[in-house]
Amino acid sequence: MKRLQVQSSVGNYEVLVGRGAWRELGGLTGFTSAFVLTEGNLWKTWGSQFKRRTGWARLQPIVVPPGETSKSLTMAGRVAAELLNRGADRRSFLVALGGGVVGDLGGFVASTYMRGIAYAQAPTTVLAQVDSAIGGKTAVNIRAAKNLVGTFYAPRLVASDPTVLGSLSLRAFRSGLYEAVKHSILAGPALFDWLDGKLAGLRPHDTAMLEALVGRAAAVKVGVVSRDEREADLRRILNLGHTYGHALEEATAYRRFLHGEAVAWGVLLVTRLAEIVGLLDPGEGKRISRLVRSVGPLPPIRGLREEKILRLLPRDKKAVGGKIHWVLPENIGKVRVTPDVPPAAVSAAFREVQRGVWNG
Amino acid sequence: MKRLQVQSSVGNYEVLVGRGAWRELGGLTGFTSAFVLTEGNLWKTWGSQFKRRTGWARLQPIVVPPGETSKSLTMAGRVAAELLNRGADRRSFLVALGGGVVGDLGGFVASTYMRGIAYAQAPTTVLAQVDSAIGGKTAVNIRAAKNLVGTFYAPRLVASDPTVLGSLSLRAFRSGLYEAVKHSILAGPALFDWLDGKLAGLRPHDTAMLEALVGRAAAVKVGVVSRDEREADLRRILNLGHTYGHALEEATAYRRFLHGEAVAWGVLLVTRLAEIVGLLDPGEGKRISRLVRSVGPLPPIRGLREEKILRLLPRDKKAVGGKIHWVLPENIGKVRVTPDVPPAAVSAAFREVQRGVWNG
Repeated sequence: MKRLQVQSSVGNYEVLVGRGAWRELGGLTGFTSAFVLTEGNLWKTWGSQFKRRTGWARLQPIVVPPGETSKSLTMAGRVAAELLNRGADRRSFLVALGGGVVGDLGGFVASTYMRGIAYAQAPTTVLAQVDSAIGGKTAVNIRAAKNLVGTFYAPRLVASDPTVLGSLSLRAFRSGLYEAVKHSILAGPALFDWLDGKLAGLRPHDTAMLEALVGRAAAVKVGVVSRDEREADLRRILNLGHTYGHALEEATAYRRFLHGEAVAWGVLLVTRLAEIVGLLDPGEGKRISRLVRSVGPLPPIRGLREEKILRLLPRDKKAVGGKIHWVLPENIGKVRVTPDVPPAAVSAAFREVQRGVWNG
Repeated sequence: MKRLQVQSSVGNYEVLVGRGAWRELGGLTGFTSAFVLTEGNLWKTWGSQFKRRTGWARLQPIVVPPGETSKSLTMAGRVAAELLNRGADRRSFLVALGGGVVGDLGGFVASTYMRGIAYAQAPTTVLAQVDSAIGGKTAVNIRAAKNLVGTFYAPRLVASDPTVLGSLSLRAFRSGLYEAVKHSILAGPALFDWLDGKLAGLRPHDTAMLEALVGRAAAVKVGVVSRDEREADLRRILNLGHTYGHALEEATAYRRFLHGEAVAWGVLLVTRLAEIVGLLDPGEGKRISRLVRSVGPLPPIRGLREEKILRLLPRDKKAVGGKIHWVLPENIGKVRVTPDVPPAAVSAAFREVQRGVWNG
């Protein structure tokens, strides 16, 4: 079992990665009652094991429909009403058992139910285990605006059991691996080289390997958020690949790409962009694109109109005047955050990667 | 201008009470843009003065309908969407200009918009100036459950100008005075005696007197929340009169009583209850009931069924098993919080006050 320590301004907590991690949830004490927020299919597959491991034998889940539409204020209100209905009080405990949607929604409900109750994350996707369950960000969507409403609220524990990844579809599984690749570009050669060659044949039930992979990738996120929880600066580097990625998701109404797949394209695109502006050596760029490609096939970006993508590039919410903060790889282990990128280079990178004229 | 310092775990801030207090809002700097959340009629009456005092000449308000129904997650989502629409970013500033509803809603939106932006309270009712705008509690209602969802989130400033009270109806004005009476029972003879004789003829436009009154009553709340922001124990004393009061409001579907009026009845009822259980000297009880009665007439509690009221007495959300935590006056300046009150005494107090057989 790997134990990672998050130090944050809203509280310190552990991220546990390993088979049997759920057992530690049952060891948390001082609560009047425990509730789990999850999805129906997940609970059908993993519910009895979750109850056995945590020791919460009579646990009845609060179930939300799968998919991004559950990340709404309406759903948050329904979950709160359901908690009240079942007698949850200020000293009750909520576990979010699921992927990014359940984690974000569950964290938001926990942070606002009776002005805040204790909660934990039990992430069930690669994406959530290596990324979204760590860092204390909670959120719901307001119509078109993703994550517009949310809180910073630390969980008591993040308990990631890699066994649960075994029930993911191959596509969802691979989508999460791209976030691990992204983390390795931030972290440096030790993790990057370790991943190289391992991703191609990796499958959801390769539990031992995944335990190592999730542990190492989660450690990257833990390191970043422990140093800068509120994303003032350092946390921005986690957005590597997300600038193009978000535009791709939005241009296709969140239907063509899974989040990690859009991020994978985003990583390829900024890698080429960094080469074009002379920040990244083409040899390094080739290594990055090869690692991304080794995960598996990506849904095509052919047919997407360049102007549309460029128009949808998300502007930074914090910057006055709304500049784009590009996160560009300088080499494996180092990125630069900069708003100063010529628009012509941004177009060129998109065109070259889209047309396959680059090695990506 | 009176300046009170709140020390709280989520941040320290000042409560300003005095004519011209809004001017200090305009002095807050470091924001990309400022927004005000308010009600239509309030803005019509006070908007131009608010713009002049703050110096925010081009300010356009975000308006919500008056009344408790605006304190919803749906409305919070609409306000967030409107903020986004108008270009609010993470460094924007929100002022809640209004009574308890606008203050609770505005605080909730501020604490969750882009995971939290800076905000201030500019309370416009007696109730909000002496009580609800102070302490960092934000909330919205979920169907029948009042304040079920909310946050603890400190404002940058609470700016209370007593001039604004001049546009209150006499009834709404008096409803707030009951909270000031409640505070004086907690605070002791200095404030209690000072209020005695002043409340009977007090009118909304008696600005100089109100400045003194609000300043002194607000100081009581500041003292309590500075010592115990999260209501672990001490903050419970602020619920004096609220146990019966909430039951009266709920039994009449929040239609017969303004909140302060229900609290006034609640104070009378626990005063009699404290006499019955031998905690309070009848002479002190008479003084309390006379001060409450001196504010003005209350909507009658005749006709309310005793069993219904007793059934609706709110159980404490924190206590295991859901006991009622009664806040009983022992004398002027001292209350006792206790779950150990015989049900027969609770009934008897209600009956005697309802039938007018007690001096209340």
